[in-house]
Amino acid sequence: MTIGQTSESLYQQYKDITQKAADLNNASAMLGWDQEVYMPSKGFEMRGRQLATLASLAHEMVTSDAYGNLLQELAGRSDLEDTAKRNVELSLEDYNKNKKLPAAFIEQLTQQTSASYSAWIQSRKENKYSIYAPELEKMIALKRQQADMYGYAAHPYDALLDEYEKGATVALLDGVFSNVKTELPILLDKIKAAPQVDDSFFIQHFPRQQQWDFSIDVLKIMGYDFTAGRQDISEHPFTTSFSPEDVRVTTRVDENNYASLLWSTIHEGGHALYEQGLPVAQYGLPLGAAASLGVHESQSRLWENCVGRGTYFWQYFYPKLQQYFPQQLSNVSGHVFYKGMNKVQPSLIRTEADEVTYHFHVLIRYEIEKALISGELYPEDLAETWNGLYKKYLGVTPQDDKQGVLQDVHWAHGSFGYFPTYSLGSFYAAQLYVQAEKDIMNLPEMMAQGNFTHLLQWLRDNVHQYGRHYTSEEICKRVTGSGLNFEVFMDYARQKFATVYDISQI
Amino acid sequence: MTIGQTSESLYQQYKDITQKAADLNNASAMLGWDQEVYMPSKGFEMRGRQLATLASLAHEMVTSDAYGNLLQELAGRSDLEDTAKRNVELSLEDYNKNKKLPAAFIEQLTQQTSASYSAWIQSRKENKYSIYAPELEKMIALKRQQADMYGYAAHPYDALLDEYEKGATVALLDGVFSNVKTELPILLDKIKAAPQVDDSFFIQHFPRQQQWDFSIDVLKIMGYDFTAGRQDISEHPFTTSFSPEDVRVTTRVDENNYASLLWSTIHEGGHALYEQGLPVAQYGLPLGAAASLGVHESQSRLWENCVGRGTYFWQYFYPKLQQYFPQQLSNVSGHVFYKGMNKVQPSLIRTEADEVTYHFHVLIRYEIEKALISGELYPEDLAETWNGLYKKYLGVTPQDDKQGVLQDVHWAHGSFGYFPTYSLGSFYAAQLYVQAEKDIMNLPEMMAQGNFTHLLQWLRDNVHQYGRHYTSEEICKRVTGSGLNFEVFMDYARQKFATVYDISQI
Repeated sequence: MTIGQTSESLYQQYKDITQKAADLNNASAMLGWDQEVYMPSKGFEMRGRQLATLASLAHEMVTSDAYGNLLQELAGRSDLEDTAKRNVELSLEDYNKNKKLPAAFIEQLTQQTSASYSAWIQSRKENKYSIYAPELEKMIALKRQQADMYGYAAHPYDALLDEYEKGATVALLDGVFSNVKTELPILLDKIKAAPQVDDSFFIQHFPRQQQWDFSIDVLKIMGYDFTAGRQDISEHPFTTSFSPEDVRVTTRVDENNYASLLWSTIHEGGHALYEQGLPVAQYGLPLGAAASLGVHESQSRLWENCVGRGTYFWQYFYPKLQQYFPQQLSNVSGHVFYKGMNKVQPSLIRTEADEVTYHFHVLIRYEIEKALISGELYPEDLAETWNGLYKKYLGVTPQDDKQGVLQDVHWAHGSFGYFPTYSLGSFYAAQLYVQAEKDIMNLPEMMAQGNFTHLLQWLRDNVHQYGRHYTSEEICKRVTGSGLNFEVFMDYARQKFATVYDISQI
Repeated sequence: MTIGQTSESLYQQYKDITQKAADLNNASAMLGWDQEVYMPSKGFEMRGRQLATLASLAHEMVTSDAYGNLLQELAGRSDLEDTAKRNVELSLEDYNKNKKLPAAFIEQLTQQTSASYSAWIQSRKENKYSIYAPELEKMIALKRQQADMYGYAAHPYDALLDEYEKGATVALLDGVFSNVKTELPILLDKIKAAPQVDDSFFIQHFPRQQQWDFSIDVLKIMGYDFTAGRQDISEHPFTTSFSPEDVRVTTRVDENNYASLLWSTIHEGGHALYEQGLPVAQYGLPLGAAASLGVHESQSRLWENCVGRGTYFWQYFYPKLQQYFPQQLSNVSGHVFYKGMNKVQPSLIRTEADEVTYHFHVLIRYEIEKALISGELYPEDLAETWNGLYKKYLGVTPQDDKQGVLQDVHWAHGSFGYFPTYSLGSFYAAQLYVQAEKDIMNLPEMMAQGNFTHLLQWLRDNVHQYGRHYTSEEICKRVTGSGLNFEVFMDYARQKFATVYDISQI
C-alpha cells in the first residue's frame, strides 16, 4: 500500500501518527501536572482512568502494524532529507523496542507498578520495609523478564539501562564507579580533616512570599521564559513539558529551611531550559525530544551545582538575596554564604546530599540494582544490604527504613537503571561546564554581572537544538572532544572544595 | 459478530467505548480549563493541536460503524435493565445525530469557527462590526446547512435548538417570549415609576483577598465539595467538570466592584453543584451527563437569583459579609443591601443585567437568530437591527458595537440556539424553587440559619441524580406537575420586586 507513494507523502503520514501520539502523551503530562499541583483529592480515581486511556491509545498508535510498515518503508527510502531520515531511524528503533513487549506483559507491569507503589506507600507509613519486600520481589521478576525480552549482550541490567540512557552499560558504569570509589573518598577524607564550614544560616525563618519572589527572579535571570512556562508548588519538585512552548517547573517552600526551595528552583530551572530549547519544528518527533535522562540531568546539575553553587552566580545574586532577607542574612557575608551552601557532610537522604557525597548514594543504588537484577541479592535481604553499604561508603546508618531503603519511589515504579543517570548527569555537567568556560569569553565576569545569556545560548547550540539526534556520549564527544571522563569532574571538585575548605594540598 | 454475544457482554463493550470517549473529552476539558486559568501565553498554538487531536479521536470512537452496530444490536435486546436500556437509547440518538454530519462538514465548521472567532476578536479590537460580518455570514450559511442535515419539521432553527435543549422548538419559544413581551414590560414600567433603589455600595474598594475568602465561605455553605473541586480566577467565569469527583469553578475579582465576583461565584457554584451531583456510577454515559443547557442554567439561576438574591440567604450571610468589610458595609443596612442587589435598570450588557431586564436581552438574540437562520435578516444589517431592538425593548442604545452586537462570543463559536436556554433556565429555576419551598418544611428558616443541605438534597433527588434520563420539560413536569410555565416566574418576579420597590399594586 505504501510502495506507490512518494517519500514526502509517507513522511507526512509518519509525522501525523507520531505527533498525534505525542499530543496524547502531552495531554497526559498536563493531567499529571494538575494531579501533583492543583487536583482536589477526590479526583484521583477518575484521573487514573483518564490517564490510562490516553496512555493506551498513544501506545496503540505507535505499535500498530501499519505504523511499523510505514517506518520500514521509509527507512528504505534514500530520498529523505537528513532530519527526516534521523527521525525515522529513531522511531523505528522505538517501534522495534516497543514491539518486544507483548501487550499482556505491559498490562502486568502496569498492575504490578500500582501494587508495588501502594505497598511502598503503606510500608513508609508503617516504617517497615518488610511490607514492601514481596511486591518489590514481583517487580524485580518482571524487570528480569523485561530485560530478557529486550535482549542484551553482557548483563541483563544493560537492557534496562538502555531505557533511560541509550548506550550506557554495566561495563561503562563499573568503570566510572570504580573511579568514584577510588578517588572520591580521598577528597572526602581531606574535607573531613579540614575545619568544617557553617550552613546554619539556612535554618531560619524565611517568609514564603520572599522565597517565592526571589526564585522567580532567579529563573528569569537564568533565561527561563515565563511566557512559555510557569512555576507552581508541589510536594516533590519536578519539571514537565507539553511542548517547548509550555514547560513548567514546580518547587517547594519550607519557611524554616531556605535550602529546600533554592536548590530545587535552580535544578528544575536547568531541566526546563533544556525543554524550552528543544526545536518546536520537531514537536512530537524524536528530534524534538531530550536526548536521555543523563543529558537532562547534566542540564539541571550544571545550573544547580556548577553555576548555582558557584561564586560568580552569587556575586550577582547575593546582594539581591540580602535585600529580600535583611534580617536573616545581613550578618552573613557572601564568603560565608558560599562556603555554607557547599558544605560537604555524609548523610542519609540522597536528594539532600551535597555535590561530593551524592555519588556514594547513587553508587549504592547502582550496586544494589545490578545485584537484584542478576539475582545475587534477594529482596528480603535488601534493607540489611542497604544499611551495610551506607555504613561502608558514607559511614552513616539509617535509624529506620524510611531514612534508608524506603526513601526513593523509583523501584516501586519499576524504574531500574534510572539512578545511574543522576551521576552520569553530574559528570557530564562538569565536562560541559568546563568546556563552556573555555568556549565563552569572560563567562565568569558575565555571570557575576547577572548575564547568563551566552551560557544558555552555548547550551542551546551545543546540546538543546539536537533533541535525540545524538546520544549522551556522542554529545559529550562532539562538545568536549572526549566521552564521559570522570577526571574532569574530579578536577572540578578538587579545585572547588579546596577553596571551600581552605585545603592547600588536594 | 455481535449476535452470538450476551447482552451483558455487549453492554460492557458499549460502556468501554463510550467511557473511553468520555475520558478523552474530560482530558480536553482539563486542557481547556488550564488554557483559561494557568497556561502561559506561548502555549496556545500547541494546546490547540492537542485539543484537536483529542476531539477527533473521541469523535471517531462514537461515530464508528462498529459502535453503531453495537448500539443497534443492544437497542433490540429486551433483557437490558432500565438504566442500561436508557443509556443505549440516548447513545443511539447521539450516534444517529452525529452520523448526519459528514466528517468534511465538521472540518469546515471547525475551520469557520476559528475564522469567525478571529474576526470577532479583531472586530472587537477595532470596535467595528463590519470586520466580523462576512465571517459571520459564512458561519450562518453553515448553520443553515447543518439544520438541513439534521432535518426539522417546522423551522430550521428547531434543528439547532435541539443541540442545546432537546425538545425545544420555535413554537414553544414563541409562546414563552410572547408572554415575556406582554407581561414583563408592565412590571418594568411599575418599577421605573417607583422610587429607585441604591446599589452604589457595590462600587467601593473591596480588597481582593477578603472577596476571595468570602466567596469560598459561600461555596462551602452552599454545599460545594472542595475535595471534589476548586475555585480559580479567569477572565470569564465558568464551570467545568472532569467527572463528578472533580468539578471546578472560576470567578473574577474587580476590587472596585464587588458585584462582579459575588454573583459569578454563586452562579457558577449552582452549575457546579449540579455536576457534582451527577451519578459517578454512570461516568461518561448519558445518564451521567447533565440533562440540557436549560436545566444547567436552572441550577445556576436558582442559586444565584432565587436563593442568592433573596432575603433568607443574606439573613445568614450579611453579618458575615459586614465582618469581612466593616469599613465598606457597616453603614449599609441588610435591607438596603438586599434592595440594592436587586436593582432593576435597563442596560446594554446581557451578563450584567438584572433578573427582570435580562430576558429582553435574550429575547432580542432569539428574534435575531431566528431571522438570521431563516434568511429574513442579512448579517450586514445585523448591527442596525440589534440597536433597533435594544431601543424597542430596553430603551437604550449602544454607543458602539462592542457595547452592542459584538458583546457575546456565541455566534463566532457557531452557537445558534444557545441563548434561549438562558431564559428557559431562569423560568425553570423559578418553578423549581417555588416547588422546593412547598416540598421542604421551613426552607426559609433553614436558609436564614445557613442551612442549605435540604435544598441541595432536594435538587439532588429531583434533578441531579437522573442525568439525561429526562428532558428539561419532563423534569419540570415530574417535579412541579407542569411543564414550562412562565406565569410562575412572573408571579415570583412580581412578588419579589413589589418588596424591593415598595410597590403595593403590582
